Amino acid sequence: MLTRQIVRTIRFHRPNGAGQVVTLASIAGAGTGDRGRSPLDSRERGHQSGGNESSDNVLPTLSLIFGGSIMTYLITEKIKKKPTKVYAKEASLDEIRKAHDTPRKDLPEFTMDEIVKHNAPVPGIWVTYGIGVYDITSFVPKHPGSDKVMLAAGGAIDPFWHIFQQHNTLEVLTLLETFRIGNLRQDDVVGTADLHDPWAAEPKRHPILRPATLKPFNAEPPPAVLMDSFLTPNEFFYVRNHLPVPEVDLQTYELELENEKTQDGRTIRFEDIRKYPKHTVTATIMCGGNRRSEMMEVKPIKGLSWGPSAVGNAQWSGARLRDILRDAGVREDDEDGHVQFEGLDTDPTSTAYGASIPLAKAMDPRGDVILAYEMNGQPLTRDHGFPIRVIVPGVVGSRNVKWLGRIVVSRDESSSHWQQNDYKSFSPSTDWDTVDFKTAPAIQNMPVTSAICVPANGATVEAADGFVMVKGYAWSGGGSAIVRVDLTADGGKSWIVANLDEEDKSAGPGRRWSWTLWTAKIPVSPGQKGPLEIWSKAVDSNYNTQPETFANIWNLRGVVGNAYSRVRINVK
Amino acid sequence: MLTRQIVRTIRFHRPNGAGQVVTLASIAGAGTGDRGRSPLDSRERGHQSGGNESSDNVLPTLSLIFGGSIMTYLITEKIKKKPTKVYAKEASLDEIRKAHDTPRKDLPEFTMDEIVKHNAPVPGIWVTYGIGVYDITSFVPKHPGSDKVMLAAGGAIDPFWHIFQQHNTLEVLTLLETFRIGNLRQDDVVGTADLHDPWAAEPKRHPILRPATLKPFNAEPPPAVLMDSFLTPNEFFYVRNHLPVPEVDLQTYELELENEKTQDGRTIRFEDIRKYPKHTVTATIMCGGNRRSEMMEVKPIKGLSWGPSAVGNAQWSGARLRDILRDAGVREDDEDGHVQFEGLDTDPTSTAYGASIPLAKAMDPRGDVILAYEMNGQPLTRDHGFPIRVIVPGVVGSRNVKWLGRIVVSRDESSSHWQQNDYKSFSPSTDWDTVDFKTAPAIQNMPVTSAICVPANGATVEAADGFVMVKGYAWSGGGSAIVRVDLTADGGKSWIVANLDEEDKSAGPGRRWSWTLWTAKIPVSPGQKGPLEIWSKAVDSNYNTQPETFANIWNLRGVVGNAYSRVRINVK
Repeated sequence: MLTRQIVRTIRFHRPNGAGQVVTLASIAGAGTGDRGRSPLDSRERGHQSGGNESSDNVLPTLSLIFGGSIMTYLITEKIKKKPTKVYAKEASLDEIRKAHDTPRKDLPEFTMDEIVKHNAPVPGIWVTYGIGVYDITSFVPKHPGSDKVMLAAGGAIDPFWHIFQQHNTLEVLTLLETFRIGNLRQDDVVGTADLHDPWAAEPKRHPILRPATLKPFNAEPPPAVLMDSFLTPNEFFYVRNHLPVPEVDLQTYELELENEKTQDGRTIRFEDIRKYPKHTVTATIMCGGNRRSEMMEVKPIKGLSWGPSAVGNAQWSGARLRDILRDAGVREDDEDGHVQFEGLDTDPTSTAYGASIPLAKAMDPRGDVILAYEMNGQPLTRDHGFPIRVIVPGVVGSRNVKWLGRIVVSRDESSSHWQQNDYKSFSPSTDWDTVDFKTAPAIQNMPVTSAICVPANGATVEAADGFVMVKGYAWSGGGSAIVRVDLTADGGKSWIVANLDEEDKSAGPGRRWSWTLWTAKIPVSPGQKGPLEIWSKAVDSNYNTQPETFANIWNLRGVVGNAYSRVRINVK
Repeated sequence: MLTRQIVRTIRFHRPNGAGQVVTLASIAGAGTGDRGRSPLDSRERGHQSGGNESSDNVLPTLSLIFGGSIMTYLITEKIKKKPTKVYAKEASLDEIRKAHDTPRKDLPEFTMDEIVKHNAPVPGIWVTYGIGVYDITSFVPKHPGSDKVMLAAGGAIDPFWHIFQQHNTLEVLTLLETFRIGNLRQDDVVGTADLHDPWAAEPKRHPILRPATLKPFNAEPPPAVLMDSFLTPNEFFYVRNHLPVPEVDLQTYELELENEKTQDGRTIRFEDIRKYPKHTVTATIMCGGNRRSEMMEVKPIKGLSWGPSAVGNAQWSGARLRDILRDAGVREDDEDGHVQFEGLDTDPTSTAYGASIPLAKAMDPRGDVILAYEMNGQPLTRDHGFPIRVIVPGVVGSRNVKWLGRIVVSRDESSSHWQQNDYKSFSPSTDWDTVDFKTAPAIQNMPVTSAICVPANGATVEAADGFVMVKGYAWSGGGSAIVRVDLTADGGKSWIVANLDEEDKSAGPGRRWSWTLWTAKIPVSPGQKGPLEIWSKAVDSNYNTQPETFANIWNLRGVVGNAYSRVRINVK
């Protein structure tokens, strides 16, 4: 159970040496002077005594405290219900920024010793930010990742928000102020002036990538760019990071490999991985939230507003995971359990990004799971997982863990936030008040989908020879091929079958990991002008097809959004 | 290529000994006297010189000449276009039956020697039935299985229709008379009086099964019956036969096994199969046309009008196919090719029912393909394939070949009609004028589906404790589990998540071959009376879900009909 024995310290990756460790206590100490208990201590005590029904939910990971998607929450719920008493909604960002540094004379003063006692629903969950003291007890259960919020319970959130700077918005700060109950004694205020900037060593990105967030970096290319080649160029490939990009030195890189079933443990160096037979697989990777922006049109969703380009197709080369696991004593026919992956990207508590896949997938000779060190014939770039990324073909991007640092063969799934409380889907009527993440399986294989990439939604186009040319991609997870893509420009009265231009016909049955690029010619009558709505739907080799609308597959995490692709264009 | 070397004779299975052979020539001779060329001869010549672009399409199989579904064709097209000159639409069945025995004085007489020359589009495709001579050239391209019609080109259809007695209807005979061009010389008329009745040895069936057709026998139980048990009782299990049920003597039964790749050929006896390790798999089998009746509400379809009960779940036991194939020299990792199956059920040309699956599925250690000799712990019944049926879990029923007589490992798919020109799906806009069966893959894995079985569509129900209880099944092919079933009674405004009552949790990941039975409680307000429409949709472990409507997945064969299940009930 080594994975659970987390060194509960704040570790920031500094440019001049990965893995340097600074404890939050020592950092916080700089600002809090001589108070006896650090915010981290209080958090740990909170976990031990917080009465949370599953310590796994509290302990494991932190990526965002309050989360970027809080804006959605705020806009849809909180402001309506409980406008701040201090600032009108029209307050400027500068004004609201000053709030947490300004004592409120109408409210009492607290010491950090009093704050740290409030680390559980009873007697209440308090946090501090600057000089402000906030009772967020009522907010925690409604938060997308209440386990994540609890990491700050009874302490200061300043060090976390120093990393996750997307909280520095009018909306988030306004929401926070609605929970204000007092002022922190000036001597106890947690400073962040000495904290190293964990984002200082981010790689350069191609400007074609359109960021959804900058820190962490999440970006996709314009859809039309995807149509230019069957293999997506590395620099145009969408990036989905949950944490700062780690810096890894190939000379010192070690991959830990543990088999909980046999108690086997070993470390593997980069050159050891290179010595295995090199296996190349062409596979599409898609973010679980791809096309979320379309689902958001039905009802707001907490999450990055991805367009249809959080997807790419590449040729990946590396060692077969099953070869490595067999050498570690895993039986070929063992399908009872999971393979957990941890990245070298870590949050302030040193908890790594993590995910797992079924052992059966890892050991399947036709599963094509590899530890990749090359992408399209080049060494992996830092944004794509240098030096090693596990490629799990057919499976949602979030299980294709980058910067691989650790593999654990276990009877259990990864306990990480992203495996247990994210990347799952629910009924359209399940909301944050009723969701129980345990009731849904973690997404693995992705469903069939397609997207129209050209023309862009809203574009004005001219018909040529009586046709509007439409281009897009289609893909299905689990190794299913795309057998047909149908398009309609009259709401389903008539359908045009697309031409499948590029596909990986060399892949064996059930191993079609790559997308299919297609073109369709939509007939328009001479003189037809004005708006035209075009839909696409793909059919895969299991004859599964896309659902018509996002309304009936809407889910609170905004994942697996595979409804018909619809673009509204203007024919000129 | 032994499979192609078909003994082109008419073989009927007589009750007193399977496999007795009577040539059509000899039978026909009884009625045709001394004419030099039999109808069969003419057909063979036709195949050789017919100019058909693919001899495979012409040679292989015959199950129905003109087909039971011709009624749909007739009703929707032919009668409208070209009412018969001889009989008004109101003609009785008795009147129309006499037509083919009655010379038309306004038409010329032909000899069989003249008929046999008309076996191709040029100079024309003629057939005889009784004394009638018919030019069906214009009809053949529009026929659902033009390859099948061509088997009768230039000859008599009487012997075929003697077997496929569903042609003995007002609609089919009326259609035929519209093509009348002459009278056959009385001496050349093909009699059927001496033909043995191939249906005489059909097994007894449980009266709970509701027949769609009697010869061949196709029947399903009432949907509510499916809800009574996770394993469907053998006698309630739907039956899908394409031909008469063969009678097999276990003492003389032999399974031919040929490996075209290695030129290996052998025969295996029943006891040899029993000697392999016994493997038991719980698997749902579903007809490709299950729920076709719902799709037919959109637009007519040629095919059996199945309700939602052409499905059942059973525990099958037998030998693993991969064990047998390995003994026949097939490499474990060979995924290049197909395994063809032929049944002992044969048509009048001795062509067996046939289908194939990818070799990769057969050899997959987690594919669970078995040669089953037991169903729910009992020897297979005759209707379910005695003595051996191949069970291909997750795959459409039509590949689970019954009465298995022959296995061929080949680079090619089965050339059978059912593999090549049936059990495929197309765009909703593809019709019989435009369809090219080569453009679609044969259905293998089935898509995710669900069906409401209780209450029945149209039922009047009383709410209990404020709820209407709804029960149904959900299933997905390819080994995917059902993770959720959502129901709505307000057109999707709100969704109720069903309770998954029975499922095979012991199955490994990707090996969930069994259906899931579920129950949902639909709330109705006190005093709520009148019509209520309830929908169900299932979500599988790939997060694929059902499409909303049949309109957008309608296809000319009426297969893979997996749209939302909708029942309209009356709350009293």
